[in-house]
Amino acid sequence: MDQLRVRIVGIGTHLQPVVFLRSDSSVCRSEGLATQTRVSLIYEGRELTATLNIVTDHLVNEGEIGLSDAAVNALGVQEGDVVSLQHAPAVESLHHVRSKLYGHALGRQAMQDIVADVVAGHYSDIHLAAFVTACAGSRLDEREITYLTDAMVRSGRRLTWDHPQVVDKHCLGGLPGNRTTPIVVAIVAACGLVMPKSSSRAITSPAGTADTVETMMPVQLTTAHMQSVVETEGACMVWGGAVSLSPADDLLIRVERALDLDSEGQMVASVLSKKIAAGSTHVLIDIPVGPTAKVRSHAQANRLGSVLCHVGEALGLHVQIHISEGSQPVGRGIGPALEAQDVLAVLRRQADAPDDLKQRALDLAAIILEMGGAAVPGQGRELAQRTLEGGQALDKFMAIAQAQGGFHEPPVAGFHHDIVAQRDGVVAYMNNRFLSRLAKLAGAPADAAAGLSMHVRLGERVSRGDVLVTIHAQAQGQLDYALEFFNQHPHEVRVESEFV
Amino acid sequence: MDQLRVRIVGIGTHLQPVVFLRSDSSVCRSEGLATQTRVSLIYEGRELTATLNIVTDHLVNEGEIGLSDAAVNALGVQEGDVVSLQHAPAVESLHHVRSKLYGHALGRQAMQDIVADVVAGHYSDIHLAAFVTACAGSRLDEREITYLTDAMVRSGRRLTWDHPQVVDKHCLGGLPGNRTTPIVVAIVAACGLVMPKSSSRAITSPAGTADTVETMMPVQLTTAHMQSVVETEGACMVWGGAVSLSPADDLLIRVERALDLDSEGQMVASVLSKKIAAGSTHVLIDIPVGPTAKVRSHAQANRLGSVLCHVGEALGLHVQIHISEGSQPVGRGIGPALEAQDVLAVLRRQADAPDDLKQRALDLAAIILEMGGAAVPGQGRELAQRTLEGGQALDKFMAIAQAQGGFHEPPVAGFHHDIVAQRDGVVAYMNNRFLSRLAKLAGAPADAAAGLSMHVRLGERVSRGDVLVTIHAQAQGQLDYALEFFNQHPHEVRVESEFV
Repeated sequence: MDQLRVRIVGIGTHLQPVVFLRSDSSVCRSEGLATQTRVSLIYEGRELTATLNIVTDHLVNEGEIGLSDAAVNALGVQEGDVVSLQHAPAVESLHHVRSKLYGHALGRQAMQDIVADVVAGHYSDIHLAAFVTACAGSRLDEREITYLTDAMVRSGRRLTWDHPQVVDKHCLGGLPGNRTTPIVVAIVAACGLVMPKSSSRAITSPAGTADTVETMMPVQLTTAHMQSVVETEGACMVWGGAVSLSPADDLLIRVERALDLDSEGQMVASVLSKKIAAGSTHVLIDIPVGPTAKVRSHAQANRLGSVLCHVGEALGLHVQIHISEGSQPVGRGIGPALEAQDVLAVLRRQADAPDDLKQRALDLAAIILEMGGAAVPGQGRELAQRTLEGGQALDKFMAIAQAQGGFHEPPVAGFHHDIVAQRDGVVAYMNNRFLSRLAKLAGAPADAAAGLSMHVRLGERVSRGDVLVTIHAQAQGQLDYALEFFNQHPHEVRVESEFV
Repeated sequence: MDQLRVRIVGIGTHLQPVVFLRSDSSVCRSEGLATQTRVSLIYEGRELTATLNIVTDHLVNEGEIGLSDAAVNALGVQEGDVVSLQHAPAVESLHHVRSKLYGHALGRQAMQDIVADVVAGHYSDIHLAAFVTACAGSRLDEREITYLTDAMVRSGRRLTWDHPQVVDKHCLGGLPGNRTTPIVVAIVAACGLVMPKSSSRAITSPAGTADTVETMMPVQLTTAHMQSVVETEGACMVWGGAVSLSPADDLLIRVERALDLDSEGQMVASVLSKKIAAGSTHVLIDIPVGPTAKVRSHAQANRLGSVLCHVGEALGLHVQIHISEGSQPVGRGIGPALEAQDVLAVLRRQADAPDDLKQRALDLAAIILEMGGAAVPGQGRELAQRTLEGGQALDKFMAIAQAQGGFHEPPVAGFHHDIVAQRDGVVAYMNNRFLSRLAKLAGAPADAAAGLSMHVRLGERVSRGDVLVTIHAQAQGQLDYALEFFNQHPHEVRVESEFV
């Protein structure tokens, strides 16, 4: 075990910790260390696995080890602290991953070993990508998904509430702008149900609910803060990652994002592990179906719904499925702040509020109100509508924002460009995936104000020169980049001649 | 497109190019660049895709871009050169990888697109791991393997020879110390056949043929040099990577190594693409079968053999399969130099030469001599034996070494440790995979002299205190590390009491 002085080299390598040693250092020669070797660092009882980079230049000196920002944060060290270094032990759980590749199902213990190693940081990017890929498509059966979900719940904190019923909702993505959650939470909590909502940030989409809510109020709350918000308001809207619910999920999601991949098993485990860890008892899952949505057919939605119900049941969670229409974006905005504008317009009962977003939110709130016993079957929608239109939902939303640290209006982007119709006709086709990609190229979700505003809906008549879509960006470079991509794919938002 | 001055930062990140920009630089802010963003660099018409790291320290200044060694080599730039930078275009072929994960077979064009992007460096480690994993196990059918093989051949240079028949051999690994190739090449070439042998370095084993041969002669030859060696001597023994045969293979192998994974489809494509690119017409493939070999059953060997024959045939290559015994290491040495010692002992007809290695080499040479028409069927083995024992094989070996740059004796390690029997008895079990891992922990193949010498064979009687295995290492740290691993797994080389 070698002792080395820490040098903070100011290199950010995201979540993946990297360390730097000189090629001519005695530790490299005596331990036979090379670039890409996995090493263990120990400091005051904390252990970290990192990837080694060999340097030949002045970055670190003999007897020093350079640490990337992720390594510094994970170990909690400062410049000049002395750490111990050794070869990382072999990652034993990788043989389960290999076994899966050779067609063997993963058992309960195997899943727990893998997830524990992932959370402990023992997997490199290559290992994470192999695990994610090995489980992709439909390669996990219901039993394996149950084990994965359970292992992910156990990988982090688990919240408990002093209420027999704790409701929750989730939307299985793929539909740009479908930001019903803040509206549903406000309605349901205003009617007295308990809904401690934790959401994720975007995986492959231009905005996650947490990204959108963050443009209006703080979402990175401590668990204690989150619990006090729920105690006083009956609900909250926080980022799940900040309260350490299912931390394995965030590590896997980073790799899924790089691969632009959502796998069925991991999608189910991701959704349900967050809900179970958050202490929910009843969950409504909305599955939009459309040709370019994440789920493309009712058959697929039913199959996925069945897996969600079975895995939930196996782990003591009541799951209800709602299949909805998903052939075009919801509301006007695509991107964190632009979607927040739509949410506020509905809650504030503005005349120009997008009606499709409002109707969807009411549909979902109605089911949850009935599921949670706040309304008798058949009466949920009327209660939901009354609560929204009477202003109690807006009051509740603002009260939650206040409890979470204060409300603020969403930001507005500095650069924008209108895309106009090149002919008279009818809006005949919109590719949701293309629109998501376009919004991401414009900077969403990293730039909260970036994204798209949709000015038309499917089937709408337009004249040449009418604005179809506005691109919003925080930098000219990103606006140009998005526009170039749009021009390369002229048929993804299509206006066709009207034949009469 | 931004212009930046190159700064060589002296960071080695293996084959994966990495670039560094300051977080407060105008290019980062205007382009919305973040750590892990994939960027394109252009210099004098050459284009390189690299992974961005954001730095906050003094590593690079405003207007500069730091390049890792891999990026410097790939672009061919020097300190102070000006390069252009932009967001990397989306990697279109990744949608084929995702499609494969969802159960769709990969077509000819899809495989060519993927392999072309891999060779162009457009895939990050995460992307490479996903592709390798998506194709792992038995997930490629014969048609997909044929497409992959063909795409890999097209990804690099293709050699041609002025001979109607060009023979080659390959061993499907997994058997430590099975280093027949240098002996077979020497015999076959001494008998007048043309055998331009290119070998790979170790994938997951402690030594590849190229690693072993390199301890005796240069193997990194230019293509022109390789061709002149074959012209004068009828054969060569070079590292395939140096002559750009199937370069995609080397990139995929690096990731397979990190995952300790060999997939059937990629194994077949790797083997056959190298042979076809090398201009071979007739190939003998040796498949050792044993409980801890890479191939564990005759059924698996036959299935793999059939895939190799069919894919070879589809691409115009005649493939012959030889299934051999694979329950224990071959020869005495495990590790590049230690295996070279065994090869030299056989060629030099030393009294202590390992007979199992000699017999295996003669078996293979016999088949190739008959396959290539140098011996009539049934007469191959006698010719092979005569050529070895008459010294013509040694002469040919030395002539090839001379032509490749000169012969030298293999190096000897500075540190070693004997592992002795703890009891009287019989050597009842040896785990090939454990022995490979042990040799790797001792430093092989990076340290050519590191590895193991086996002093006993299965079924041999030993007394307490007899040496079973010697561990060789170039550093005390590695010797200790290997020994610790051995002590943690006391049952992988097992001496059992003899019951009479």
